[in-house]
Amino acid sequence: MSEKKSKLTMKDVAREAGVAIGTVSKVLNGLPVGEEYRIKVEEAVEKLNYRVNSYAKGLRENKTFTVAVIVPNLITPYFAKLVNCILKSLTAHKYRMMLYASDYNPAQEQEFIYIAEQKKVDGIICLSYSLDLDISEDIPFVSIDRYFGSKASCVASDNYGGGVLAVEKLAECGCKNLAFMRIGSKRTNEPNKRKDGFINACERLGLDYTLKIVDDGTPYSAFEDFLREHCHDNKLDFDGIFCVTDSLAYQICRFLKGMDIRIPEDVQIIGFDGIRSFGNLDLYCSTIVQPVEEIAETCVELLLNKPKSASLVCLPVNYAYGGTTKA
Amino acid sequence: MSEKKSKLTMKDVAREAGVAIGTVSKVLNGLPVGEEYRIKVEEAVEKLNYRVNSYAKGLRENKTFTVAVIVPNLITPYFAKLVNCILKSLTAHKYRMMLYASDYNPAQEQEFIYIAEQKKVDGIICLSYSLDLDISEDIPFVSIDRYFGSKASCVASDNYGGGVLAVEKLAECGCKNLAFMRIGSKRTNEPNKRKDGFINACERLGLDYTLKIVDDGTPYSAFEDFLREHCHDNKLDFDGIFCVTDSLAYQICRFLKGMDIRIPEDVQIIGFDGIRSFGNLDLYCSTIVQPVEEIAETCVELLLNKPKSASLVCLPVNYAYGGTTKA
Repeated sequence: MSEKKSKLTMKDVAREAGVAIGTVSKVLNGLPVGEEYRIKVEEAVEKLNYRVNSYAKGLRENKTFTVAVIVPNLITPYFAKLVNCILKSLTAHKYRMMLYASDYNPAQEQEFIYIAEQKKVDGIICLSYSLDLDISEDIPFVSIDRYFGSKASCVASDNYGGGVLAVEKLAECGCKNLAFMRIGSKRTNEPNKRKDGFINACERLGLDYTLKIVDDGTPYSAFEDFLREHCHDNKLDFDGIFCVTDSLAYQICRFLKGMDIRIPEDVQIIGFDGIRSFGNLDLYCSTIVQPVEEIAETCVELLLNKPKSASLVCLPVNYAYGGTTKA
Repeated sequence: MSEKKSKLTMKDVAREAGVAIGTVSKVLNGLPVGEEYRIKVEEAVEKLNYRVNSYAKGLRENKTFTVAVIVPNLITPYFAKLVNCILKSLTAHKYRMMLYASDYNPAQEQEFIYIAEQKKVDGIICLSYSLDLDISEDIPFVSIDRYFGSKASCVASDNYGGGVLAVEKLAECGCKNLAFMRIGSKRTNEPNKRKDGFINACERLGLDYTLKIVDDGTPYSAFEDFLREHCHDNKLDFDGIFCVTDSLAYQICRFLKGMDIRIPEDVQIIGFDGIRSFGNLDLYCSTIVQPVEEIAETCVELLLNKPKSASLVCLPVNYAYGGTTKA
């Protein structure tokens, strides 16, 4: 293609076709116009060899430059931050985001996937709560936090490593008797590995530990009952607690303070996520920080580069002191 | 159109055109296919009078069933909740959301508006930080929190009423000497009316008051300096403070506690927004709650119903006790 031709604009096409520039734009964007106008524009595009903008690229490669993103909601700060970072990364790649919120409903999630596929988006990024998904092989699909084997690549934090890190930090801070607390889906997903890392590290370091794991939908008071059972003479059996999210850690701290148990003097608590109040102020607790920006960028890169085989990518986490541990 | 014909499906079109159903789908969705296929499909559509699905509806009305939403970011909890509610409302109306984050950059905002207009979305909802916007008259546009006069409808909380309500609550709780604290854009926007309501109510109720208003970009320490200047013998000049956001109220509370000033015993504090930690747990402070769901639904309704004249819609706020006042 000659340098000269690459400088053609929609104006030239409009002049050649004898139509308004808006009509050219409509045709170039695949929007409905009268058939006679479409033909005039397409003839002008061919005659002028107008092929050097993103539309022509889209035509040749059948691209929409749109990615569908499906998350449960934007109320949960972790999801909001994730979508924020994915949007930044997509915008940097000149892609647009079509956003869907599934409200944790697998049927709704699947429906959004079908809608996105029907609209021929260039890819789908989904933080899924489904056990299984019907995914078209024609459209790149990247999953966050749930691995679907060879069906799709999955990006997550190193959740296992995060569980190990939490135990190591509590041990460094002098804890001998730990508890792990989790509420969540029974389904296998990556965040479940936080527990496995926790157990592995406790056993390796010779620490006593207790697990309190309840299913989604269990009232939060189950944790309070558990803590009351493990409290004797105003003293807790545990000197360290690892909670599966910062949200749970926050609630546990609030409850323990109400029982006059001091944090971090009597018990040290570590959460998971790295959420900050108002998005950018204080951490709620000492925590294992998920690398949200890196997760978002990795999702976008995997989606746009379409690797031949699906992979599980676990990105390193780090520890941040947030006042609920001794260091 | 006969009932019988309304039961035609894409399969019938594919059979009539002698093409694959995927080709029909592409044409119906305005996606690029070879010209000969497009013509075959379009002829079959005409012959069968296949006009009763949303595509045909879209064709006739030139609709994309897509709305562009532009906010500064999703890190700020208020914006995240707003987008969450707008998305719910759009989904209920069978619309999809194209999301853009402007990062408070007016030029970026304007560019996103142009992109959305070029893509022929059915409407744009924008929480704008621009003084002025170039908006096409062809595409419905609804603004949040910034009124552009006759150019576009604007939806906001009753910010003025919220300022009045905060003063009334502080007065009810025994406050006599109030401070108002605000950081934000100098530009005229709806949230600025919180100050006007504050002043009006203070004067009506005969309360002393002091304003501390700084521009965006001023370091937060300006508020700390202000409070130190107004603190004598460990006693603050004010017994009530109205902060323009919950985020500011949270920071002011943290600072005052560090100065050993008790909240709410020594000074009572009210914020604005109604943000909860982790999206759904505790309020950070006593606060004027913005009706986010109603704001979102009103935006969507105004957008889809395209009223003839632009209006400013201010929706009622309410007070919520969050521990930083006596009631």
